Amino acid sequence: MSGSIPSSKRRIVDIHTHMYPPSYIKILESRTTIPLVRSFPQAADPRLILLKAEVESLEDATADPSSTSKKLPGRPLTSHYASLEQKMHFMDTHGIHTSVVSLANPWLDFLSANESGPMAESVNRDFSSMCAKHPGRLFFFATLPLTAPLATIRSAVEYAKGLKYCRGVILGTSGLGKGLDDPDLVPIFEALAAAALPVFLHPHYGLPVEMWGPRASAEYGHVLPLALGFPMETTIAVTRMYLSGVFEKVPRLRMILAHSGGTLPFLAGRIESCILHDGQLVAEGKVGSGRRTVWDVLKEQVYLDAVVYSEVGLKAAIDASGADRLMFGTDHPFFPPLTSDEQGKWESVSMNAEAVERAVGKGSSGAAAIMGDNAIKVLRLDEDP
Amino acid sequence: MSGSIPSSKRRIVDIHTHMYPPSYIKILESRTTIPLVRSFPQAADPRLILLKAEVESLEDATADPSSTSKKLPGRPLTSHYASLEQKMHFMDTHGIHTSVVSLANPWLDFLSANESGPMAESVNRDFSSMCAKHPGRLFFFATLPLTAPLATIRSAVEYAKGLKYCRGVILGTSGLGKGLDDPDLVPIFEALAAAALPVFLHPHYGLPVEMWGPRASAEYGHVLPLALGFPMETTIAVTRMYLSGVFEKVPRLRMILAHSGGTLPFLAGRIESCILHDGQLVAEGKVGSGRRTVWDVLKEQVYLDAVVYSEVGLKAAIDASGADRLMFGTDHPFFPPLTSDEQGKWESVSMNAEAVERAVGKGSSGAAAIMGDNAIKVLRLDEDP
Repeated sequence: MSGSIPSSKRRIVDIHTHMYPPSYIKILESRTTIPLVRSFPQAADPRLILLKAEVESLEDATADPSSTSKKLPGRPLTSHYASLEQKMHFMDTHGIHTSVVSLANPWLDFLSANESGPMAESVNRDFSSMCAKHPGRLFFFATLPLTAPLATIRSAVEYAKGLKYCRGVILGTSGLGKGLDDPDLVPIFEALAAAALPVFLHPHYGLPVEMWGPRASAEYGHVLPLALGFPMETTIAVTRMYLSGVFEKVPRLRMILAHSGGTLPFLAGRIESCILHDGQLVAEGKVGSGRRTVWDVLKEQVYLDAVVYSEVGLKAAIDASGADRLMFGTDHPFFPPLTSDEQGKWESVSMNAEAVERAVGKGSSGAAAIMGDNAIKVLRLDEDP
Repeated sequence: MSGSIPSSKRRIVDIHTHMYPPSYIKILESRTTIPLVRSFPQAADPRLILLKAEVESLEDATADPSSTSKKLPGRPLTSHYASLEQKMHFMDTHGIHTSVVSLANPWLDFLSANESGPMAESVNRDFSSMCAKHPGRLFFFATLPLTAPLATIRSAVEYAKGLKYCRGVILGTSGLGKGLDDPDLVPIFEALAAAALPVFLHPHYGLPVEMWGPRASAEYGHVLPLALGFPMETTIAVTRMYLSGVFEKVPRLRMILAHSGGTLPFLAGRIESCILHDGQLVAEGKVGSGRRTVWDVLKEQVYLDAVVYSEVGLKAAIDASGADRLMFGTDHPFFPPLTSDEQGKWESVSMNAEAVERAVGKGSSGAAAIMGDNAIKVLRLDEDP
């Protein structure tokens, strides 16, 4: 497809968009602990329950089947989660030419060492087949079997590298179980860097539920874990990576941070100050000149999606990383419209598109870059698939 | 002193600057659990140990008294923490005309119901005496005895209101033990609003230590709890307040958020989106038009200090709240210079002053506003003390 669409056409690319292939949903349906899919007599769609914070309302709904559907746990598992036709319809509705799809959280984190290898291959094969049905319009980030032995994970990286439409991998924050600053992960990051596969870092685990206080589950819906827990988790994960020195150890490592880096652009200055003023780090000689700062990493090894829902946040992301490192995303199929037709335009999409227009100017080259050109360049979406 | 300093002199005001009066340090010295002050044979200054993350190294140092001073827990309790002369020297060194001092964390949170009332009065009286020694140069935020019965807390608000140099209260995030979204706190917020005393919201508890992972305490100093835990705690506390409706219930409540709001300016868009897309909140009719948004609160009921250590963060804070709502601070005596003379200029101060200059322009009216004029106006620092 290379060259068939001139850059003046300003292709819109969505790099943050998820799917659960049918085989993955089948697993969720068979489970009794989160993540799981459960049907309730009082609702048409089964419910998808992913978060710890949602478990309490699961117990309520199970204990009291007369509870109204609005109080059911999780979210409706609509066709948006698994149907390719629905994904294409969503893209067409929003003028999105190309999507780089990825498995939604929590990926394969909950599978045993034996299960995750074959499941990763099956999921990545499913995504490859979907992309092949719409060449040039669909690419994907592969899933790694992180609970499997190291050799299996390495094989999965090699396998992903050979897949025609694969343009990176999606990773949660748990790594091999000890976070992304785990020295045992360095060989994986090296393999990914060598394969030129960037890592799309995405949250799932949030913060412990007690952080939200006694009123949260009854009164605040899922606002606190989703609005605060997710971006804070991302920020913590990437800051731990930074402090572990992995960006220096693997200079060709490239990370794409979900939700515009969580809160990293806003906190980078404070992180730098806390490093410069840390007695232990200074005494150990870790704060010398020539040190790679958080700002260096933000401008050279990190890309940010533009899923921050405000001009204020997007401007900060641009100030931190540069307008050439931001890439539009929708987070589809999450955050569907609640008061208008789900088959129409989604407000969650327009909030982010409007933030881009306001931050860099409607019709500007900066807007074209963030809405698509950056992704085309960074993720090689114009190479003949 | 009113009118004695023309506004053209561009007074620099520091609204985020702490002290521990001697009586408070005496309490810390008598304690065996955090917060505490402990002396070690291998160091000249006693050590001030405030955070859970510091306790592990306390145990190491106690078990092995030959460990070097650089590995000692906490931070040196220098004269900067309790000496008024040192505070004035610090202000003179940095060209700060006026400081609004406050008790540092964790305030009186650890005292029993019986102890906290008298201690609050003693601390607030100490601050009053210090301010009286330098009229016009020192004001203070009072401390409330939040572990005491409600009537005692109310009396403390009345007492603070009557103190000549008091310009607000400093509050942590624990409230009466259940966070700042606790309905039982509403009468206190009402009393503070009626007394026109703004609340300076300051973090202390951070996030659970397991968030920092297995490598943090040995390898990353205190960077993660201080750089991430503190601002995330503030963000969670004020978002919980917002969701509880307290800003609507107490329209005259004014909050000054430490560290430029933690991460609130960056996350406000995501919070708004998560509210608009929350099935439960929408079903309960809580997301109607005319709703007071996070942005409304940021622009009308919240002020932010300018302690964010970067132009990126400061610009986002200004974009969220307005340049007329930002107020310079130093966080003295925390973050002293580690490689230069503590009696000279502090890099932690210049990082924030330079962020102001870069964000709004050196010598601009915006810079004058943030560096002092806003605080003079908002906190009535020109009224004859």
